[in-house]
Amino acid sequence: MNKIIAEVSIIPLGAGTSISWLVAEAVKVLQESGLKYQLTSMGTIIEGPWGEVMDTIQEMHEKVFQSGALRVSTSLKIDDRRDGKEVSMERKVKAVEEKLS
Amino acid sequence: MNKIIAEVSIIPLGAGTSISWLVAEAVKVLQESGLKYQLTSMGTIIEGPWGEVMDTIQEMHEKVFQSGALRVSTSLKIDDRRDGKEVSMERKVKAVEEKLS
Amino acid sequence: MNKIIAEVSIIPLGAGTSISWLVAEAVKVLQESGLKYQLTSMGTIIEGPWGEVMDTIQEMHEKVFQSGALRVSTSLKIDDRRDGKEVSMERKVKAVEEKLS
Amino acid sequence: MNKIIAEVSIIPLGAGTSISWLVAEAVKVLQESGLKYQLTSMGTIIEGPWGEVMDTIQEMHEKVFQSGALRVSTSLKIDDRRDGKEVSMERKVKAVEEKLS
Repeated sequence: MNKIIAEVSIIPLGAGTSISWLVAEAVKVLQESGLKYQLTSMGTIIEGPWGEVMDTIQEMHEKVFQSGALRVSTSLKIDDRRDGKEVSMERKVKAVEEKLS
Repeated sequence: MNKIIAEVSIIPLGAGTSISWLVAEAVKVLQESGLKYQLTSMGTIIEGPWGEVMDTIQEMHEKVFQSGALRVSTSLKIDDRRDGKEVSMERKVKAVEEKLS
Repeated sequence: MNKIIAEVSIIPLGAGTSISWLVAEAVKVLQESGLKYQLTSMGTIIEGPWGEVMDTIQEMHEKVFQSGALRVSTSLKIDDRRDGKEVSMERKVKAVEEKLS
Repeated sequence: MNKIIAEVSIIPLGAGTSISWLVAEAVKVLQESGLKYQLTSMGTIIEGPWGEVMDTIQEMHEKVFQSGALRVSTSLKIDDRRDGKEVSMERKVKAVEEKLS
């Protein structure tokens, strides 16, 4: 099964400027999915098959509404590589770091 | 059924610098979906229910691989509003334009 | 002078869910710049040299703070092409549309 | 001086599917800037004042052309917060993680 790497950023509107608690609600949904992920200061990176990743992102987005948001702006970037190179979050960072030293 | 407005941008890698023919292949898939859309110089804006929009974006993304790309970077931004205000591509632009004049 | 095409989307946080008046304040700044632009339902597309475009985006971003926002999330995508093909917002859309018919 | 947190992703077109060496060239420019940054599998997060961050991103973008790319798609997301809360890459991640446990 082909794996993608996706970065998602969920911005609730109308919920004030301190939104980390809403982001945390979405991340709890992600944790229950069992998918591999990494939190960064600008989003959440998720690794897995397209269907599982997208279903989980939809659940995360819904959770932010259920937690009180009235408008949500969700951004998503997908890297999908099928040229035979193995894909993982770690390998992508390592590939750049090796060329820096 | 709640409608979202989504903007999608699909960038094929390893297919040279002239990629409009690959974008056109993806847009043909979108046209067959029957969803309302608008082409812009930086992406394609689609309006519809989450499930239909996302399924269509997956098909567009797959089509770019089937047309020869070996790696695809797909970006997506979703605006989902549930505060009772009616949502459409036209209304969003009009809401800003009215405040400019 | 090399021209870029940039799409900018400015999201004010802590300003409620109806933000078109804040977007309009930013667009007024853009109008004063004299740069070519197009409003879409998901952002604003701007055409011009890097320096002018970026200075204008900074002024738009600042304007949203001056108008009352306390936190602003600004997204930007730049298409910069230097392979000899002429670049413009209209040509990019036309290049795709020609391949659809 | 107000600090922003920005995430930048630079995609060279017409340079094949293995682009980590081009990303590494851009990161070398960033390292020379002295700005605080973090590499992730989907982009590079940079912290600093608007002017310094943007000048560095322009240099990174130019470097990718100088290294051989003919077209470059650069995406950027800026988080700018002026509600009195201290801003840093670490604090943003910590704020979410504290609410998860």
